Amino acid sequence: MLKDVEGVLIDLDGTIFNGDELIPGAIQAISYIRSLNKKIMFLSNRGNYSREMCFEKLTRLGVEVLYEEIILSSTVTAMYLQEYYPKCSVWTLGDVGLKEELEGSGVKLASAPEEADFLVITLHENLSYYELNRAFQAVQHGARILATNSDKTFPNENGKSIDVAGMIGAIEAATGKRTELVFGKPSHFMVEAALRQLALNANQCMIIGDSLGSDIEMGKMHGMKTLLVLSGNTSRKQLEFILESNNPDYVCDSINEIINEKMEVQQ
Amino acid sequence: MLKDVEGVLIDLDGTIFNGDELIPGAIQAISYIRSLNKKIMFLSNRGNYSREMCFEKLTRLGVEVLYEEIILSSTVTAMYLQEYYPKCSVWTLGDVGLKEELEGSGVKLASAPEEADFLVITLHENLSYYELNRAFQAVQHGARILATNSDKTFPNENGKSIDVAGMIGAIEAATGKRTELVFGKPSHFMVEAALRQLALNANQCMIIGDSLGSDIEMGKMHGMKTLLVLSGNTSRKQLEFILESNNPDYVCDSINEIINEKMEVQQ
Repeated sequence: MLKDVEGVLIDLDGTIFNGDELIPGAIQAISYIRSLNKKIMFLSNRGNYSREMCFEKLTRLGVEVLYEEIILSSTVTAMYLQEYYPKCSVWTLGDVGLKEELEGSGVKLASAPEEADFLVITLHENLSYYELNRAFQAVQHGARILATNSDKTFPNENGKSIDVAGMIGAIEAATGKRTELVFGKPSHFMVEAALRQLALNANQCMIIGDSLGSDIEMGKMHGMKTLLVLSGNTSRKQLEFILESNNPDYVCDSINEIINEKMEVQQ
Repeated sequence: MLKDVEGVLIDLDGTIFNGDELIPGAIQAISYIRSLNKKIMFLSNRGNYSREMCFEKLTRLGVEVLYEEIILSSTVTAMYLQEYYPKCSVWTLGDVGLKEELEGSGVKLASAPEEADFLVITLHENLSYYELNRAFQAVQHGARILATNSDKTFPNENGKSIDVAGMIGAIEAATGKRTELVFGKPSHFMVEAALRQLALNANQCMIIGDSLGSDIEMGKMHGMKTLLVLSGNTSRKQLEFILESNNPDYVCDSINEIINEKMEVQQ
């Protein structure tokens, strides 16, 4: 399965871990991929983490990883702003990781919401009314809306929790303005950033992830091989209802089955 | 102007007070209306207050008011649930006043979000991610969505703040479900509750409020006289852009001008 593959893009939430629990066999699967001399990029829609935070989490969970092997939607948002709007100032609605990632990339943070050119929205697990209202003020005063990702839910120990779609919905509904760009998977921004870092073309890569709507769709659109794992967002039951054209190339219960190539080939 | 009027429906936010500041002359205007032996109902879209809290606030600000003269969107929500779903259990996303009003009317509150038949959303000025996620869980587990009102902003000392539309937007965007009923003005629920309490017909009443979209629209639809005050949500500039059919009957800068009948009659 990995014979013609030079690089493997691996999702994190639901593929490597759920919340703070490592998916059994994930470490061994990554070691196996490395032993075949394939390049790896970890690609997550999490925009509320910085790469530093993500690196620490993976290391703490025992996953062998380099800082350079991580791309988050916060990373890609920062790259975009840095490239196209180097002089802009940004207000954020989201956990501190987004701010860290923006600042680390040299993006200027506004000192007050009224001064911001852009509002960047991400998951905010410490959301308060005060902060929601500050973000609302930014848009009221002219800030354009960007979002790291638009996931509706994320998996954790207790099932599914409300994700950034909730924060976006709050701001859009109250301001009547729309989000202009969403950077996370399945956007081309994530693919481009990953391929540039890997120095590979899409057809040399495979993507492994738990989400049909982001991981698999993105892989298929760009001509990558796709492997769906059923350890996160997608259940086997849901697979029955998808269109043939959206089928992943391979399906398995979790990433650890890559070692024995216990994949099901999809038609 | 008040000659043929038996009852006066008076909005609160932007008409009697802005935040904690009384609008100058509001007390005298209310005394004047009472001196003409007109009945009064205070009608507010606030769903995060209970009548008790509202009564205390008005009394603290020096406004002469009876408990029975107050109807809030939380009141009407409670009446509806009590009448049509007397056995249902309810989860709330909003400030404590909503819970107080529901419980005070005998509506059963669910002990966990998973058990709720309905989620009632109102403004939550103490919103946290935890509570947003609990409300999300209620809908994920089958609760139907109701909202006390759907205002986008409310006026306060610092301009406009994000209102219940933000909370609704968050839940709708993340769950893909829609709010089934909105109880606040301009819904018929508010009108009916007020007229029942006043024991009057709509054509015997005048409504005084600061919002074209809720107060004036509701009054006109039901055949009441309408007086728009410019002390809150609506500026004189906005008046230029409204359709003739939506014109209030009278316009004045603030409610205190009712004493000298310094109204402008609209065409």
